[in-house]
Amino acid sequence: MENKQQLTIVKIGGNIIDNNDMLTGFLKDFSVLDGPKILIHGGGKLATRTAESLGITPVFYEGRRITDAPMLEVAVMTYAGWINKTITAKLQALQNNAMGFTGADGNLILSKKRENAAVDFGFVGDVIAINKSLLKSLILQEVVPVFSAITHDGKGQLLNTNADTIASTLAMALSASFDVKLLYSFEKDGVLSNIEDDKSVISKITFDLYRKLRHRGTIHSGMLPKLDNCFEALSQGVSQINIGGPGILKKGNNAFTQITY
Amino acid sequence: MENKQQLTIVKIGGNIIDNNDMLTGFLKDFSVLDGPKILIHGGGKLATRTAESLGITPVFYEGRRITDAPMLEVAVMTYAGWINKTITAKLQALQNNAMGFTGADGNLILSKKRENAAVDFGFVGDVIAINKSLLKSLILQEVVPVFSAITHDGKGQLLNTNADTIASTLAMALSASFDVKLLYSFEKDGVLSNIEDDKSVISKITFDLYRKLRHRGTIHSGMLPKLDNCFEALSQGVSQINIGGPGILKKGNNAFTQITY
Repeated sequence: MENKQQLTIVKIGGNIIDNNDMLTGFLKDFSVLDGPKILIHGGGKLATRTAESLGITPVFYEGRRITDAPMLEVAVMTYAGWINKTITAKLQALQNNAMGFTGADGNLILSKKRENAAVDFGFVGDVIAINKSLLKSLILQEVVPVFSAITHDGKGQLLNTNADTIASTLAMALSASFDVKLLYSFEKDGVLSNIEDDKSVISKITFDLYRKLRHRGTIHSGMLPKLDNCFEALSQGVSQINIGGPGILKKGNNAFTQITY
Repeated sequence: MENKQQLTIVKIGGNIIDNNDMLTGFLKDFSVLDGPKILIHGGGKLATRTAESLGITPVFYEGRRITDAPMLEVAVMTYAGWINKTITAKLQALQNNAMGFTGADGNLILSKKRENAAVDFGFVGDVIAINKSLLKSLILQEVVPVFSAITHDGKGQLLNTNADTIASTLAMALSASFDVKLLYSFEKDGVLSNIEDDKSVISKITFDLYRKLRHRGTIHSGMLPKLDNCFEALSQGVSQINIGGPGILKKGNNAFTQITY
């Protein structure tokens, strides 16, 4: 087996982005990670707050947000604009040569507008291709890519895209060239066996255990697509996946869930 | 004399950005330019409109805008967010491998907060360094850089920066590696000898003529720093500079002002 260089791909959620001290601490931990790395960030509350201030009313369908044209503009302004560039500037100050991207930049992430017979979710895209050669070339030039969850369709349309999926798709695409470690940071310290108890972190979830937990209903709703993504990524060559809290990058941290086959 | 590859650097102003049809037409002209190229865009009215909608009151000092913290956030959201990514996605649809940047991305443009004893203009930066090697490497990979007028100070602070100056500074920095042609597109078809007459485009301005026109007051206010930038760029190795209107890139267009020594 060939000896590939390790690449760490980290996805952070809104809870970190919304808290400036937490974000600063997290970026410090991220900045000292050795070797090639990629950061993917979600949105946080800034988009909702900005939309409210602009008098844009969010549209929902069965609890899921519809990205209409005004909301897309707000998403691009906040995710790809303020949040992405703030993170990039902070990482630069930490001596990481960060470069902030949407999928449109360098055609790095091409997606397709989601078609759904039942309901139109608006300007939402599902990833169809990664520009691996350009991304790999940037990484080998010691650039640290920072992705917001905005992609494009190659026909001039920007699209809102799920940040977890971007992370797992990038991980899969780059696993032919690197030994990819994928880390998800979210509000809890890992996948919980009891949603009421933040300490009930399951240390390891195999595919067998996942099927059991899903069957029992221990794992449900938002965690299901996250874990489905993880197992797909593992099946496509990603070597390690951990899900944890804001402290997931800290040395000696062992409160996280390892996802493994 | 060595034979360098031509690099075209184009700066567009708010008048093009604010008009969707004009922007689409301009980008079409830009997309068919042969060889390496860079686009720099200013802000347009979106920032002002967004600030107004958000209830942010612009602060001015002697007619000049102060970039306070809320205005910086709006500038980054609109310039580096919506405008930059919209242009990037449109160029991608035109088969140009555009990549949208602020100066923070890849540390491409490092600036220093402007210090002024008399008045604090806020988060405004003057360019101090260009990451030439990374920029050159991207260009040689057929990436088309698209810069918004946002830079950073290397200490985590984003800064609003004059787009004309970014264009001329990039032109100077890259003139050691390329035969640089710098094109400014603004609302008039060139430098006018009579501000009341849009047809009075001066076809060529030498440094001698510039001194005379400035002395006579034919060229004044906003055009002075623009032309000072041009002559500095020419003195630093930039080979051609033209100032024209939205049609400056059209084949056969000859309504523009050539700036030359």
